[in-house]
Amino acid sequence: MIEVLAFSTPNSVKVPIALEEMELDYRLVPVNLREGEQKTDAFKAMNPNAKVPVLIDRSVLGDGDVVLSESAAILVYLAEKTGQLLPKNGPQRGKVFEQLFFHASGLSPAFLQAFLIAIQLPPQPEAQARALSEVDRALGVLNHGLKHQRYVAGDAYSIADIAHFGWAWRHQAVGATLDKFPFVARWYAEISARPAVARGIAKTLALAE
Amino acid sequence: MIEVLAFSTPNSVKVPIALEEMELDYRLVPVNLREGEQKTDAFKAMNPNAKVPVLIDRSVLGDGDVVLSESAAILVYLAEKTGQLLPKNGPQRGKVFEQLFFHASGLSPAFLQAFLIAIQLPPQPEAQARALSEVDRALGVLNHGLKHQRYVAGDAYSIADIAHFGWAWRHQAVGATLDKFPFVARWYAEISARPAVARGIAKTLALAE
Repeated sequence: MIEVLAFSTPNSVKVPIALEEMELDYRLVPVNLREGEQKTDAFKAMNPNAKVPVLIDRSVLGDGDVVLSESAAILVYLAEKTGQLLPKNGPQRGKVFEQLFFHASGLSPAFLQAFLIAIQLPPQPEAQARALSEVDRALGVLNHGLKHQRYVAGDAYSIADIAHFGWAWRHQAVGATLDKFPFVARWYAEISARPAVARGIAKTLALAE
Repeated sequence: MIEVLAFSTPNSVKVPIALEEMELDYRLVPVNLREGEQKTDAFKAMNPNAKVPVLIDRSVLGDGDVVLSESAAILVYLAEKTGQLLPKNGPQRGKVFEQLFFHASGLSPAFLQAFLIAIQLPPQPEAQARALSEVDRALGVLNHGLKHQRYVAGDAYSIADIAHFGWAWRHQAVGATLDKFPFVARWYAEISARPAVARGIAKTLALAE
């Protein structure tokens, strides 16, 4: 059985979406960030970086349980476990990793920074504008790629789409709009409409209820 | 032949270090960031995100040249091309990806932020202290892991060590010290002493001369 320790966050939602796409059995275990549950010793024994999500795979024979943090590392693990959503070789495989790392090092920090500033009181319009310009720069890079290909890493839906979708799903919460990025908007609408994505989102939102 | 478009930066240095470790032939092509060469149309045709390094592998048969950005995606590509520095399966493979993504999404943005504040004039002591506390938090996570294992993702040297080394190499430039992190300091000394690492650093520094 696969367990996912998660909360209603952009990084968490990627994992249930992937698990729904891959039709794997799993159980979501809420880690209430509002109560600081990610900072307990029990949680930090699994992830010293004190962040959700964490995956525990008890179905691995021989090697003991797999315990893994970092949402994108979990996506790679699940893709290789099932043989789905990540080309096994060829140039498209490299493009999926390129997008996973562009998400982790570029788009995700830009969105996180803008989100943290957006929720501050009193409002900080100047810092917010600066943060949103970096969000727009990242969305512009994504838009450029999606102009000539259906998905972020090529013509096939992959775990890189799921990674980018995690934060794109929360673009309104960071104060961003997709209006200026028509190809991102088209992609976002297509991914949102996938039944597995809708199921993953619903289960993630339920963690905070 | 492999070409690497790079400059004397923490993300660039990872690629020549990996290529030296793997004993592959390659050529470094300088992209002078001081002159803004990464923002030219020719460069952005290879990486719309306008960042070094970029790898071009002209030695691939059949599929055309591989053009890849994001230093960690390049490390994964080279590891899978050569079968080196990344376990082909088993739990340690997942741990290498966990560290690659912790580097990309956690340690690297913390170091970059602290570096950008450290070079600002006039000095901003308050912002600098805030940025350095996040650098220290990331180094603390690394230190915790290195207490019980020789390398960042386990007992074997891997591309995850090369990724973390890229920014660790520049800890003084961001105003950080390793004195508080004895296990990181031990690891840093060991990686620095590897002949391939020294060669990769020397060739990277020469790009800015």
